[in-house]
Amino acid sequence: MTQTPSVAAYPVEPRNRARRKHERASYDHASVHAVLDAGMMAHVSYVIDGQPYATPTIHWREGTRLYWHGSSASRMLRAQAGGLPVCVTVAMLDGLVMARTGMNHSANYRSAMCFGTAALVEGDAEKRHALLAMIDRFFPGRNETLRGFSEQDVKATKVVGMEIETAVAKVRTGLNGDEPEDLANPTWAGVIPVTQVIGERVPCPHNGAGAVPSGLAAWAPGRPFDEAMAELARLYEPEPA
Amino acid sequence: MTQTPSVAAYPVEPRNRARRKHERASYDHASVHAVLDAGMMAHVSYVIDGQPYATPTIHWREGTRLYWHGSSASRMLRAQAGGLPVCVTVAMLDGLVMARTGMNHSANYRSAMCFGTAALVEGDAEKRHALLAMIDRFFPGRNETLRGFSEQDVKATKVVGMEIETAVAKVRTGLNGDEPEDLANPTWAGVIPVTQVIGERVPCPHNGAGAVPSGLAAWAPGRPFDEAMAELARLYEPEPA
Repeated sequence: MTQTPSVAAYPVEPRNRARRKHERASYDHASVHAVLDAGMMAHVSYVIDGQPYATPTIHWREGTRLYWHGSSASRMLRAQAGGLPVCVTVAMLDGLVMARTGMNHSANYRSAMCFGTAALVEGDAEKRHALLAMIDRFFPGRNETLRGFSEQDVKATKVVGMEIETAVAKVRTGLNGDEPEDLANPTWAGVIPVTQVIGERVPCPHNGAGAVPSGLAAWAPGRPFDEAMAELARLYEPEPA
Repeated sequence: MTQTPSVAAYPVEPRNRARRKHERASYDHASVHAVLDAGMMAHVSYVIDGQPYATPTIHWREGTRLYWHGSSASRMLRAQAGGLPVCVTVAMLDGLVMARTGMNHSANYRSAMCFGTAALVEGDAEKRHALLAMIDRFFPGRNETLRGFSEQDVKATKVVGMEIETAVAKVRTGLNGDEPEDLANPTWAGVIPVTQVIGERVPCPHNGAGAVPSGLAAWAPGRPFDEAMAELARLYEPEPA
């Protein structure tokens, strides 16, 4: 007897339903999480006194929860410590799509928009876990080589967490799309890929001769950044068997 | 007699004033525009019925005006055709900063947050100018090789424009900062650079043998993406003599 596989997905609601280009949109966890995990920078959108802000910050994911840390936290949550509606978007440009009309020019990209209610991570133990996770998720094993977060560190830092209530991933890949009547135009058409690439490490002048590169194995120079990010996400949270 | 050079700058207001890390913040036009011009993707933050959204889209700049185009436009402006308060942020990750404590880990980045009131570009002539600009700014001369925007194209497209009322640029560069008492830790410290790089072109299978690469001179494979973007911004809007 075969079973219909059930695919975990975010609910489709007015706030996340794709209005255009439906064929590019997905709501299943795997599609959304793949985009989130491929990018380090998120843009957190929130409102204070009717004024919207889009603040870039480093983010990480645990299951269906997102976390971030950064300068925005205090302004963001000063007004509403109890919880603030936010949209957290991770997006990357993958290529310039050159067509035979201006109208058909496009971009290849991946994006994930996540909606939920942001709240400060409170409690010393929870906060300490989150701060360690922020290192572990990107640099596995590195925490063991560091002196750890002091009480003062934990006090001075704000971490924000959010359960993803709903989300949508949008992806455009592939070549240009042109109308048949435009194909005779001799202008070059196609795709110019754009990739985030890991560069050659710049060492701190205080490094000793035998400095140990802890947690850096995935960050090989020349490697695509999103590949390293995805590999580290799998290490941080192995897929269920 | 020497004159004090006057530097054009955006006003410092509650919405754009940096709350933390003041040394990373600038308000002058040159600093803000340099970040805007180096990135193609912006995140537009806006509010509908109290719900914030951060929508990624392609943007371009003319003087102190920003323009963008994309799927968000209809949802964004359906509610408030007369003008919607927005925050438009362009940000790029430039490196992972590895320190000797978790607390001192950081990221190198550039960001520009711009505040203003978004409105649809109305009128056939204005809209046509904006659509041509969207091609010209990234691919100079390419419009001349295309059949142009038909009346139907212009009707089907939405372009949004916004005068930058105020803005802030934030930039972190350079190496890790560690406390003197942590320098003896033998873990590797330093910076792992991350760069957006232009890839090898993928041609459309319909290209003829002599396909003409119009507007693509700046997009040399292997070149840093932000370098091409900055060069093209200077071509599109030469600096005043």
